[in-house]
Amino acid sequence: MIDLRSDTVTQPTPAMRRAMSEAEVGDDCYGDDPTVLRLEQKAAGLLGKAAALFVPSGTFGNQLALATHCQPGDEVIVGDDCHIVQHEVGAAGLIGGVQLRTLDSQLGALDAEAIRRRIRIGDDIHIPRTGLICLENAHSNGRVIPLAAMRDAAAVGREHGVPLHLDGARIFNAATALGVDAAEIAAHADTVMFCLSKGLAAPVGSLLAGPVDFIARARKRRKLLGGGLRQAGVLAAPGLIALDAMRLRLGEDHARARALATCLAALPGIELDLGSVQINMVWFRFTRAVDEVALMTALAAAGIKANPPEFGWMRLVTHWQIDDAALDTVITVLANVLRR
Amino acid sequence: MIDLRSDTVTQPTPAMRRAMSEAEVGDDCYGDDPTVLRLEQKAAGLLGKAAALFVPSGTFGNQLALATHCQPGDEVIVGDDCHIVQHEVGAAGLIGGVQLRTLDSQLGALDAEAIRRRIRIGDDIHIPRTGLICLENAHSNGRVIPLAAMRDAAAVGREHGVPLHLDGARIFNAATALGVDAAEIAAHADTVMFCLSKGLAAPVGSLLAGPVDFIARARKRRKLLGGGLRQAGVLAAPGLIALDAMRLRLGEDHARARALATCLAALPGIELDLGSVQINMVWFRFTRAVDEVALMTALAAAGIKANPPEFGWMRLVTHWQIDDAALDTVITVLANVLRR
Amino acid sequence: MIDLRSDTVTQPTPAMRRAMSEAEVGDDCYGDDPTVLRLEQKAAGLLGKAAALFVPSGTFGNQLALATHCQPGDEVIVGDDCHIVQHEVGAAGLIGGVQLRTLDSQLGALDAEAIRRRIRIGDDIHIPRTGLICLENAHSNGRVIPLAAMRDAAAVGREHGVPLHLDGARIFNAATALGVDAAEIAAHADTVMFCLSKGLAAPVGSLLAGPVDFIARARKRRKLLGGGLRQAGVLAAPGLIALDAMRLRLGEDHARARALATCLAALPGIELDLGSVQINMVWFRFTRAVDEVALMTALAAAGIKANPPEFGWMRLVTHWQIDDAALDTVITVLANVLRR
Amino acid sequence: MIDLRSDTVTQPTPAMRRAMSEAEVGDDCYGDDPTVLRLEQKAAGLLGKAAALFVPSGTFGNQLALATHCQPGDEVIVGDDCHIVQHEVGAAGLIGGVQLRTLDSQLGALDAEAIRRRIRIGDDIHIPRTGLICLENAHSNGRVIPLAAMRDAAAVGREHGVPLHLDGARIFNAATALGVDAAEIAAHADTVMFCLSKGLAAPVGSLLAGPVDFIARARKRRKLLGGGLRQAGVLAAPGLIALDAMRLRLGEDHARARALATCLAALPGIELDLGSVQINMVWFRFTRAVDEVALMTALAAAGIKANPPEFGWMRLVTHWQIDDAALDTVITVLANVLRR
Repeated sequence: MIDLRSDTVTQPTPAMRRAMSEAEVGDDCYGDDPTVLRLEQKAAGLLGKAAALFVPSGTFGNQLALATHCQPGDEVIVGDDCHIVQHEVGAAGLIGGVQLRTLDSQLGALDAEAIRRRIRIGDDIHIPRTGLICLENAHSNGRVIPLAAMRDAAAVGREHGVPLHLDGARIFNAATALGVDAAEIAAHADTVMFCLSKGLAAPVGSLLAGPVDFIARARKRRKLLGGGLRQAGVLAAPGLIALDAMRLRLGEDHARARALATCLAALPGIELDLGSVQINMVWFRFTRAVDEVALMTALAAAGIKANPPEFGWMRLVTHWQIDDAALDTVITVLANVLRR
Repeated sequence: MIDLRSDTVTQPTPAMRRAMSEAEVGDDCYGDDPTVLRLEQKAAGLLGKAAALFVPSGTFGNQLALATHCQPGDEVIVGDDCHIVQHEVGAAGLIGGVQLRTLDSQLGALDAEAIRRRIRIGDDIHIPRTGLICLENAHSNGRVIPLAAMRDAAAVGREHGVPLHLDGARIFNAATALGVDAAEIAAHADTVMFCLSKGLAAPVGSLLAGPVDFIARARKRRKLLGGGLRQAGVLAAPGLIALDAMRLRLGEDHARARALATCLAALPGIELDLGSVQINMVWFRFTRAVDEVALMTALAAAGIKANPPEFGWMRLVTHWQIDDAALDTVITVLANVLRR
Repeated sequence: MIDLRSDTVTQPTPAMRRAMSEAEVGDDCYGDDPTVLRLEQKAAGLLGKAAALFVPSGTFGNQLALATHCQPGDEVIVGDDCHIVQHEVGAAGLIGGVQLRTLDSQLGALDAEAIRRRIRIGDDIHIPRTGLICLENAHSNGRVIPLAAMRDAAAVGREHGVPLHLDGARIFNAATALGVDAAEIAAHADTVMFCLSKGLAAPVGSLLAGPVDFIARARKRRKLLGGGLRQAGVLAAPGLIALDAMRLRLGEDHARARALATCLAALPGIELDLGSVQINMVWFRFTRAVDEVALMTALAAAGIKANPPEFGWMRLVTHWQIDDAALDTVITVLANVLRR
Repeated sequence: MIDLRSDTVTQPTPAMRRAMSEAEVGDDCYGDDPTVLRLEQKAAGLLGKAAALFVPSGTFGNQLALATHCQPGDEVIVGDDCHIVQHEVGAAGLIGGVQLRTLDSQLGALDAEAIRRRIRIGDDIHIPRTGLICLENAHSNGRVIPLAAMRDAAAVGREHGVPLHLDGARIFNAATALGVDAAEIAAHADTVMFCLSKGLAAPVGSLLAGPVDFIARARKRRKLLGGGLRQAGVLAAPGLIALDAMRLRLGEDHARARALATCLAALPGIELDLGSVQINMVWFRFTRAVDEVALMTALAAAGIKANPPEFGWMRLVTHWQIDDAALDTVITVLANVLRR
């Protein structure tokens, strides 16, 4: 199968499977799992943070960050199109008791002045405290937020004593695209969450990194939220391979996404902004009427899994299991569908 | 004193004071207070709803509405500049466990298409349910939202099975300005909260109106939230006068606001959009540098209470304790300050 | 009517009605209401605390105390039969996000050793923090908790850094029964809630007293929970009379309760422990089969309101509107019912 | 090492390690992981429930059950000594917004009459709804709750329409001890959580089983709480071995626990109730003063990990990595320590 639905579908690599079967493990609720400890240290190091914590998922890590930064009743400033708003099932109110303040983004980037206007100032008993600003980089729309935009947002927060959390589910894609170390991106955030699954291909797990005392408080709250695992080393072992090996090959996925985009853009009947292809995601739409059933049937017949167009837009995502031959197949199928 | 800070500063009228002292009361937690029952019936009738519930404050009524309409984890679509977002201390996450989805308004009105784009559709386990749309009319910025805008928002909600709550803290100001019955405004909402204090001058209390089963559930949750009062008839009695008598004289406040605005607009050094004066609020700013300390001192010296300018804007609010002589005093003081 | 259902049914006295109509008021959300400020100071003084806050109800005050003392996830040790557990609609989880740890009481008094065994010690990530111990005095079962029991519970808490909140809804009944100042009871608690309604006869309102910084935080959270009222002086004015005058006459209610109990205990067919009559409540049960419909009909025919027996027990409550003649009527009716 | 601290320290078996490395996986958030689906079906079948859901931990599964059964503000009846109260970090208030009603147990069993007395009856607006009864079997104190006690508790709940959730973290230990199928125990509960880790030795994961619609709602809330995993098949694969193979050998652990207990009971200076050894846990205490440092040093020197005595009691837990030789070592060390 050629699965282009998302990079969340990535299967563990053979090396990861071997690592799982050989992992040195212990009971992580006792702090006894050496592989988890090694992964947490490595993750903290890569992000330039003092400490890190293994969590079951990206949503878990983001919501744990919100709830650890904030008091119930605090307000969180966040882009309307980001993952925390769009795809975390409305968790922020229930878990953290916080009030989201959503604002329009420019393709994922938040305007620093728009953030500033929403920060609460003063002691008026009518107003909540602004507890947190959240950014996302790379954004789940496939865009990379420029470092300058992150720096400006962080500066506004710092000016008012408001911390910044980065949903860095795909931070290593952003680092690859920007040609910088992930720590350079993370430097603009107080805390960062990133995923071992997605492009890094580990089966399960994410990390939340930040200051030592923050991570200590998050560790207890992780237990409360049911995220304290036992022999989690079996997940940390492939996670280490994700960080050691898979992280370094993300450029290949980006190159294939660009190659795919270039070919698709050349097809008559497709609108595609090559500038939007910044990581491993290709977005496009059809400029002529396309029979969606015929499209999905043709893709399936060629062994291709893809999500159907949503609001007219189609997204294809590359990852380690998508090779050049897979791209050729996709392009051929789409060209055929458009030729009809 | 001439208190122009807000209409929340209104003192009870002599008739209200008499009504309090003569109120027939009972224990409203047993459902025994005849005056409260009378007020709730009257309020429901005026809004064209089946039932109503006395609550201690506007914030209480709005948050009770959110929590009764929604399940924890639901999403609420609401204008970024409305009272629920701005001045209810971030309560929505803590009390209702809901996630706010804030959007920019046009001076308080929400674009129906912008609402539509934010309604969640489908069963994807990643997305919250859209539990509620909230509007505010008259808006706390002093604007009246046109009935057509309310109707369009309600239609979008109805199309997707999403109810609409109206923060009608000043619904009778809106009705007066639009020249319609409050019920005509309320018809576009499933539930409505309005305040007996503010322009209606009662000392304490608001009402939440809606369907019978909704109000029954809200009644139990009111108790949970600590809003079950005992001999609440002492507050309901002035509330009845608010609805019987004070409601009918709001036009006087609006006329005085317009008169004040017209005079201020004529002063050199003041920028004021007469079109923005729609209820009892006058917003303006100084086009020349004004010494704020001198300004506030001069106002105080003349017995005038006003909030200092915020972000350059000054707001004056008329109400039953502001008569024509008070307006003259204010205009004279401001003219003098600007003359310096 | 002779209403013996509860002391919550008390109607305001003529002096209270006059006070409401003459109250000097302001907008308490601006801190402008002189009568509220006076009441808060007086309440703090009577309880020997640094500050106090007017709240709409006893449930509001208790739950505000829990949420202000605790973080979400904390544990609260509380007697299984107290008001917070029994009659506050399960608010503690929803408002404070706290976990109740209920324990059996000895007629309302909690054993200090039983409390000690439940206090969480150490840093184990599996265990919540013990955030608060709650006592109730006088208990809603009509019993007065001895000062020694309160002192012992407070000592256990202090030993482990756990504060103590007193639900003192009827603290002045307890003080009257014990023959001490309320401050002597309150001295064993960090924070105290008491009601102006109930035996003190004010129509609406309670106070939460404690340290200055605690009350400041509670003030903001009161606003969040919708308990910020406007011209609350109309409620504070009768509240001041409750504290000045009504507080001093509670002994009359206690004496009448004892007189009523003594007469009832002498009736054949009634079981009544005179030792249980400690404040204004009389509990008894019938030792022979009594037709409940006939009983309630006979009471109603004599103009008596009472709650029907629950689990076999009947409760009658005295207050300022129950005079000696009312007692005679009640005794006569019950004697007749039992004679049949 | 001989690790007797808990059965949570169990390492995956060689077969489990192989299964992880060979697992057929997919993205379980898309419902695409065949191994997870197989595990969920097998678990449902073993418990006689219609459906089951893989969750990251036992705490996650229990709290998910509470939050899915209950509305915020509901009350949950639960034994004071059970895992939900003792070792889930106070989660019930924060996640579910529920109020715990804890009651004393008889070594883990709850008296049906004590439950009945706590169920809320009627529509009084002062009282919460009783949303759930929770039992635990086998109890984390090592006791097995008799089926009759479970049946009686369930009957009381059914009588009042209150569902029953079973914390069956060690349900297969209970089934083994009782000599019945787990489904026979689960039949008394509406929903059941059990753990794949602990005695069953899988590295990570638990299951929540119940009716189809309950599990569907739990599935969405699992996502909200951050428990939606990607290629979870790598955890489900050892989980299947846990259910297929490890489940059938729990009797060995129980036999070794009894053997260990019998030898320890024979040592002078040890108090041990053989009747308390019902699954794989041995509790005892020293009847003479024992130097705790010397004790722990002697154990460590022999390669034994054990938790130090708590409140005088010591607990040793057997599991698949504890063989007869390990028992001999432990007995020898303890005998030596006591001989000094």
